[in-house]
Amino acid sequence: MSTSKRVRAQAGVAASRRPTYLLTSYDRDVHPVEFGRILALSDGVFAIALTLLVLDLALPAVTGQVELGEALIGMQGSFFAFAISVIVVGVFHGMHHRLFSLFQRVDGLLWLMNTFYLGLVVLIPFFQRVLSEYSSDPFAYAIFAAVFGIISVIDAVMLFYAHRARLLKSPFARRHAHIEVYCGVMPVAAFLASMPFAYLVGGWTVLLWLAIPLVDGYLRGLEQRGD
Amino acid sequence: MSTSKRVRAQAGVAASRRPTYLLTSYDRDVHPVEFGRILALSDGVFAIALTLLVLDLALPAVTGQVELGEALIGMQGSFFAFAISVIVVGVFHGMHHRLFSLFQRVDGLLWLMNTFYLGLVVLIPFFQRVLSEYSSDPFAYAIFAAVFGIISVIDAVMLFYAHRARLLKSPFARRHAHIEVYCGVMPVAAFLASMPFAYLVGGWTVLLWLAIPLVDGYLRGLEQRGD
Amino acid sequence: MSTSKRVRAQAGVAASRRPTYLLTSYDRDVHPVEFGRILALSDGVFAIALTLLVLDLALPAVTGQVELGEALIGMQGSFFAFAISVIVVGVFHGMHHRLFSLFQRVDGLLWLMNTFYLGLVVLIPFFQRVLSEYSSDPFAYAIFAAVFGIISVIDAVMLFYAHRARLLKSPFARRHAHIEVYCGVMPVAAFLASMPFAYLVGGWTVLLWLAIPLVDGYLRGLEQRGD
Amino acid sequence: MSTSKRVRAQAGVAASRRPTYLLTSYDRDVHPVEFGRILALSDGVFAIALTLLVLDLALPAVTGQVELGEALIGMQGSFFAFAISVIVVGVFHGMHHRLFSLFQRVDGLLWLMNTFYLGLVVLIPFFQRVLSEYSSDPFAYAIFAAVFGIISVIDAVMLFYAHRARLLKSPFARRHAHIEVYCGVMPVAAFLASMPFAYLVGGWTVLLWLAIPLVDGYLRGLEQRGD
Repeated sequence: MSTSKRVRAQAGVAASRRPTYLLTSYDRDVHPVEFGRILALSDGVFAIALTLLVLDLALPAVTGQVELGEALIGMQGSFFAFAISVIVVGVFHGMHHRLFSLFQRVDGLLWLMNTFYLGLVVLIPFFQRVLSEYSSDPFAYAIFAAVFGIISVIDAVMLFYAHRARLLKSPFARRHAHIEVYCGVMPVAAFLASMPFAYLVGGWTVLLWLAIPLVDGYLRGLEQRGD
Repeated sequence: MSTSKRVRAQAGVAASRRPTYLLTSYDRDVHPVEFGRILALSDGVFAIALTLLVLDLALPAVTGQVELGEALIGMQGSFFAFAISVIVVGVFHGMHHRLFSLFQRVDGLLWLMNTFYLGLVVLIPFFQRVLSEYSSDPFAYAIFAAVFGIISVIDAVMLFYAHRARLLKSPFARRHAHIEVYCGVMPVAAFLASMPFAYLVGGWTVLLWLAIPLVDGYLRGLEQRGD
Repeated sequence: MSTSKRVRAQAGVAASRRPTYLLTSYDRDVHPVEFGRILALSDGVFAIALTLLVLDLALPAVTGQVELGEALIGMQGSFFAFAISVIVVGVFHGMHHRLFSLFQRVDGLLWLMNTFYLGLVVLIPFFQRVLSEYSSDPFAYAIFAAVFGIISVIDAVMLFYAHRARLLKSPFARRHAHIEVYCGVMPVAAFLASMPFAYLVGGWTVLLWLAIPLVDGYLRGLEQRGD
Repeated sequence: MSTSKRVRAQAGVAASRRPTYLLTSYDRDVHPVEFGRILALSDGVFAIALTLLVLDLALPAVTGQVELGEALIGMQGSFFAFAISVIVVGVFHGMHHRLFSLFQRVDGLLWLMNTFYLGLVVLIPFFQRVLSEYSSDPFAYAIFAAVFGIISVIDAVMLFYAHRARLLKSPFARRHAHIEVYCGVMPVAAFLASMPFAYLVGGWTVLLWLAIPLVDGYLRGLEQRGD
């Protein structure tokens, strides 16, 4: 049986097993337009989240004597928060991209979970504003970490749900399963663990966050080397 | 006759019957780029509507003694309105996705109706602001419900028009017609019915709205089970 | 020779004739990804222009006695300007869609002209703000009309350039040429003509604008009936 | 061996050589959906950057006697900065388009570099605001030029990295290499050189910037003529 026939047959079987509207699934090969719309919405939200970050960069009230250069230097806290947020949005876009590259089909429940995911991504510019306003308050870092932790939880839940509902391109090999569990649990654990750190090292917590995709990348590398 | 030939032949017939510019139709298989643009515009508007919601999350003026934590807790009304709006935009995006997945072709009239649809989606961030400002005023919920009702009306009108103008992928089976009518009328009725409810139960009206996609999903499930 | 071969051959010939970077052209069949990006940028700009319109809908300062209903009714000028702008952006998106549906290829000059086009579309939310602020000043309508007139000019210039540079899907038939000229010149003339009207009939000028796409549609209908 | 087989084989070889997650590459023919997402994000960011520019066009406080016309004329500095920024964003979108049209594959490092690129594009509306506020201060032009210079550096680094990591559609011919080096180095040099110019000629520095894509286009033209 050819690949495309098999895909249609699987989709047919899947449809007969899951009768309700929310579980109607759209296959990336059979319904490319419909599959593409969830990615279009997501990419749009990431693009806007990235761009909204700049709205919080407002020139401070410049009174007479202050030079433009001084005014810009006085904004270094805002620029720092901006740079972190750009990297954070970029890394999450990479994670979202990786997650959806594993899916063969999406259904309504995945759609709903993705909406929650995007709702949290949208909050990043807000928490950046909090961070640039309260850059000396460890609580601002702790709550930023908590948001990232929740996004990572939803990411892991979506992957687990897709595995169970057979929406993945190829099922996880048994020997990869433990690496997948590490990769799913690690960012959650790391972000949650960084919350108390915020009270110890303040702004340096950020470096801890940036280490997460690197560790994640190393683990994924192990997984691929095994193939 | 092969599927793609039949599609072209149908498109040809359709074009000869409908002479004016507004009724020129673009087929999803024959003109994928042109068909895709109405979806690109729509997904963009949904993505931005979702993201604009966060612009209304402004930290209240923090004066000396107030802690960041307290300030955030004091914003719970805004966060509540934000969460509702994210879910609402997500559900409408799902409905819009479902609607356009039924279309084989779009024409200028559908384009125009879609513009009205999007114009109302764009108003959601505005009414969220109203809701978070006047969260104790039932009228804020009633007018929110009215906006949703009108969006549902346009949704139903677009489906009906597409059916009449033969723009659907496959015509409605006779035995499905009554379920389609229920699904089209139900959200309109429910949103309108929720308007007086707002005066009785205030913020809880929101739960009524969230029930609508579930009932809708159940009805669609019945329809599919019949196939 | 098959269609796709002919396309490639034409593209090859075109490339040899136009040596400079700005005139490198991307064919919609040979380079679908590259051709799609100019549409993606354009649809994004239209989507955001549509959505930015809502940012100017700000609740007026409500002091004690004023009810929410009264406050909303007091905003009717803003809602009127919002509704006009949504329709205007929708109509221009339709015109842009129609224009690009005629193109087989885009080159750097078309890209540049499209950037000017989008730069003017982006100004619509600004002039909506002017209109809702100065709704009784005929000059606000006149300048709005001028912006639309310039967009129509660029539209006509792009079509003319694409005709000359052989970027169109199919060259204009001789007997259609005069209708194309009418269609290209008509909106420009109508918008410019509506500028003095603004001083006579004020807000009703808007109805004149809305007639333009209808007349345009009628002319296009004549053109298609002839085929 | 057919083209698509060769592509898959190359991709397989590339994957075996580069084991870590960040270097997993997505081919534009094998993974069109995944390849397309980096472009969707980028086009979204360009579209929003273009549109955000208008947010800084605020009507000055109009007090009694001032006419709308005068108020608009008084905004000429803002309109000038707006027009420059629209052209600048358009030119950078053209450069980004040209760059990605050369790529056959993207990997995680390119993704990361693209995020930095977009983060700087996002800053353009901010520096436009600075420019329209401080239009007489040469430092505003100098720092604008510096941002453009850095974007050009990232552009050149991405091209160089893609060449080394064999992500390009076709490797650079030896005889084109020196033109590519000129094209990569020229905008960087020109923008950096324009920084001191800002102190001599102020606002006219802008004309120097606009010359850059023309010179670049001329060089590319030379390159293509050689084929």
